[in-house]
Amino acid sequence: MAPLTDFYQLTMAYGHWRAGRHRLPAAAELFFRRGPFRGAFALAAGLAEGLRCLRAFRFSAADVAYLRSVLPSTTEDAFFDYLATLDASEVPFLQVKGPLLVVQLLETMLLCLVNYASLVATNAARFRFLAGPDMKLMEIGLRRAQGPDGALSASKYSYIGGFDCTSNVLAGKLYGIPVRGTIAHSFVMSFTSLEEVQPRELLPLAGGEPVDLPALAKSLLQQVCELLQIPPEKTNRGELAAFVSYAISFPHDFQGLLDTYCVRRSGLPNFCAVALALHQLGYRAVGVRLDSGDLAQQSKEIRRVFRACGAHFQVPWFETIPIAVSNDISEQSLEEFIREGSEIDMIGVGTNLVTCPLQPSLGCVYKLVEVNGSPRMKLTEDEEKMTIPGIKTIYRLYDAAGHPFMDLMALEEEPSPSAGQELAIRVLGRLGETSKVVPTTVEPLHRTYFRDGQVCEPLPSLPEVRSHAQVSLSLLSPAHRRLHEPQPYPVAVTERLHNLLTELRQVTQ
Amino acid sequence: MAPLTDFYQLTMAYGHWRAGRHRLPAAAELFFRRGPFRGAFALAAGLAEGLRCLRAFRFSAADVAYLRSVLPSTTEDAFFDYLATLDASEVPFLQVKGPLLVVQLLETMLLCLVNYASLVATNAARFRFLAGPDMKLMEIGLRRAQGPDGALSASKYSYIGGFDCTSNVLAGKLYGIPVRGTIAHSFVMSFTSLEEVQPRELLPLAGGEPVDLPALAKSLLQQVCELLQIPPEKTNRGELAAFVSYAISFPHDFQGLLDTYCVRRSGLPNFCAVALALHQLGYRAVGVRLDSGDLAQQSKEIRRVFRACGAHFQVPWFETIPIAVSNDISEQSLEEFIREGSEIDMIGVGTNLVTCPLQPSLGCVYKLVEVNGSPRMKLTEDEEKMTIPGIKTIYRLYDAAGHPFMDLMALEEEPSPSAGQELAIRVLGRLGETSKVVPTTVEPLHRTYFRDGQVCEPLPSLPEVRSHAQVSLSLLSPAHRRLHEPQPYPVAVTERLHNLLTELRQVTQ
Repeated sequence: MAPLTDFYQLTMAYGHWRAGRHRLPAAAELFFRRGPFRGAFALAAGLAEGLRCLRAFRFSAADVAYLRSVLPSTTEDAFFDYLATLDASEVPFLQVKGPLLVVQLLETMLLCLVNYASLVATNAARFRFLAGPDMKLMEIGLRRAQGPDGALSASKYSYIGGFDCTSNVLAGKLYGIPVRGTIAHSFVMSFTSLEEVQPRELLPLAGGEPVDLPALAKSLLQQVCELLQIPPEKTNRGELAAFVSYAISFPHDFQGLLDTYCVRRSGLPNFCAVALALHQLGYRAVGVRLDSGDLAQQSKEIRRVFRACGAHFQVPWFETIPIAVSNDISEQSLEEFIREGSEIDMIGVGTNLVTCPLQPSLGCVYKLVEVNGSPRMKLTEDEEKMTIPGIKTIYRLYDAAGHPFMDLMALEEEPSPSAGQELAIRVLGRLGETSKVVPTTVEPLHRTYFRDGQVCEPLPSLPEVRSHAQVSLSLLSPAHRRLHEPQPYPVAVTERLHNLLTELRQVTQ
Repeated sequence: MAPLTDFYQLTMAYGHWRAGRHRLPAAAELFFRRGPFRGAFALAAGLAEGLRCLRAFRFSAADVAYLRSVLPSTTEDAFFDYLATLDASEVPFLQVKGPLLVVQLLETMLLCLVNYASLVATNAARFRFLAGPDMKLMEIGLRRAQGPDGALSASKYSYIGGFDCTSNVLAGKLYGIPVRGTIAHSFVMSFTSLEEVQPRELLPLAGGEPVDLPALAKSLLQQVCELLQIPPEKTNRGELAAFVSYAISFPHDFQGLLDTYCVRRSGLPNFCAVALALHQLGYRAVGVRLDSGDLAQQSKEIRRVFRACGAHFQVPWFETIPIAVSNDISEQSLEEFIREGSEIDMIGVGTNLVTCPLQPSLGCVYKLVEVNGSPRMKLTEDEEKMTIPGIKTIYRLYDAAGHPFMDLMALEEEPSPSAGQELAIRVLGRLGETSKVVPTTVEPLHRTYFRDGQVCEPLPSLPEVRSHAQVSLSLLSPAHRRLHEPQPYPVAVTERLHNLLTELRQVTQ
């Protein structure tokens, strides 16, 4: 994985090497400056991928040969020999400490792995907050992601962020994420008449003689149309055939896609007819899906029809047939569904989940904070691009209600803050004033997962990561959790760290 | 690659198989409904990747075992045996014809490969149009893409769309795209004083005694500061040390990053001092980079300083030192650079190139157009989601000036339109009226690249694809090429295809 980097990392690596500085002890931090989507929270994700890449961090002979061909011809041979010996065995992560040259080389790779993973996990968490705990959320972004690997990342990190399942079969196979899916318009369109349905018979669940399902569905369609006052000739026969054929293939898992033709006059009566036919044979339909039009309004109309059919045909489960929707679903769509009191039970989200159009990149950065024992900071014309110097420990402070209310950065050598004790701190963005806070609980956030070239703590499974993320999110206070104009989540520094910062600022300017 | 698909493709595949319809001849088309970014053009890309996946289209034993675990338990064993025998040997591409089940299964994979590739290639082409032919454009999106593979796609398809180079070393190694890069703030920050510079000497290009470069640069810095009326104590010594050290490592390729501290009072004089020192030894600096602040204004100030230094120290090449910029560059940034008459020579684009925030997904779809010899179309409540039925040939029509002015869809069995002959056509979106057009040249767009399970025509190299794309773009008329409110590029159907469409519409409704 070592060549997964920006070229300037290699020219700088040569610069460090040529100057004999490549083994200076150095430390860098990976962080973001603003929470994504104008929210107050973010899920950090991508760490396990990062660890895998750290473990595999090597330049192969072919890599070195390629680098020899693109670096300036004045680059000394011994540098390439040195590159071939490199590994990440002296570097822990996500606070990264190790030899200067390696700390430098890791920047791009780690950013690449953490940025999108955290962004899409956070995006998924926002959808989960809006949808509430009971709504089923399904990730369907494979065809809209940045190629196969982008899609796999989207599936994995959406699951961590709170989605229930994915349409991506490869993600299911590789990561064990539940996969779901039913039928598309193309399947419905591939039928034109009931004559095409083969085989035609289905065995009743309780046993007995096989039943001609197309004939049964056709006769039930007459009754449904009467009940709903729809002219039967307006229903599409290809659609009915597709539903019947699918029901024979999957009698326990029949789901209808309602909007290939007209939902009200064709998709809905055809679905009800086939579902009622299945009911007569002892099976239950598992749902319907809508992929166009006003989804919230249609869901209410569909629920009314289900209730009417359930009552008329005395099929109680008809009332609660799950209604799934898709079609460019965004946060705004979810807000509309709630506002309109929709009857939607399951939502498929693709483009707006995987491409994160509200903010397509997280903007994490990776900055040197210490070299050879002396702290480093960057001061530029952009105040926001300033960095906080020194190797730090980070604590999450919780209030009496169990909500985190602040993350506090301290110098590594400072004693840990104690629960119940007053702390003098300065909040980033308002460094001029000191505040006092008294945390009820103090949680150190750093843990060492990589040391001496090895992953030194067992990595949690994907369901464990997902449940850890969901628990963390549930602890957020409502003011920080809300998606629009949340109360900013404060990040603060200790007085000692602030003193260092002020000192370095004066020296540098 | 076969499991790279949405789960419903497999439930539908079972539906087709169970109904004995899986080997019906079928045809599908992959297309988009609206050009991306509100523009009138798009580059189609991702075809070679698609071909590679078609060639490798198989379900392995492990894939089949996994599918057995996720499909309903009623799924018959013989279906899994059948899946294990599948390949794409009967399917051509990008118009996809073959057995119904395989045509269905390929949908998601092809969309995944073509959608992002085409989107980012088109996005790159837009940046190229805005920047003009002489500006160097560099792709630097690795850390902002959807993981490593998304980043590699971004590098490859940005190059096709008109970028000159990438920062992504792995993309350079795998695809042969030129890689570029210099130094980051972290490199500058890792130095604090000239004492750290090791080695200190550089041999003059023409031979002779080695020169102490830090000492030479320090004395030249005095003169530069005098000329520019800057207090020398305001220049940062760590920055000067970093520049000197880098210049000793890369005397032929020295480039300075100016904004780690203050551009005007530190970065610029330090750079000039080191560049002048190199000049005395016979070398030339290759450029500077800016990564914050008002880039256009600063570039003009920097150019003035270069001119002043060039004149004062009698170094003519100083006037034309290339100025590179980065920092969240968007189309809007490029427009500002032009408006302000900037002196920028090279632009690095990351986030706004690879994540395409103006439109983060292309929205290609893949629709069945024929099954078992009979045309299929989809009619829904959304008029825009209607499809054009039947297997078609597509022609690009050119006017006398050599500009393409229309793409025309005809039924496969229709005779090809002839150059110079009047054609009766109907434009999509205005199907009610017939228009007459006389093309000067007619180009059939379909070519067969995949047949009988083999790629049947040699694939062009990446530089050939790039040059084909650039030639195609250069043929666009100014009205279609412009990025804001372009004249829509018309897509039309022949009268015969329109008749089929009308017929099917009446039957279906």
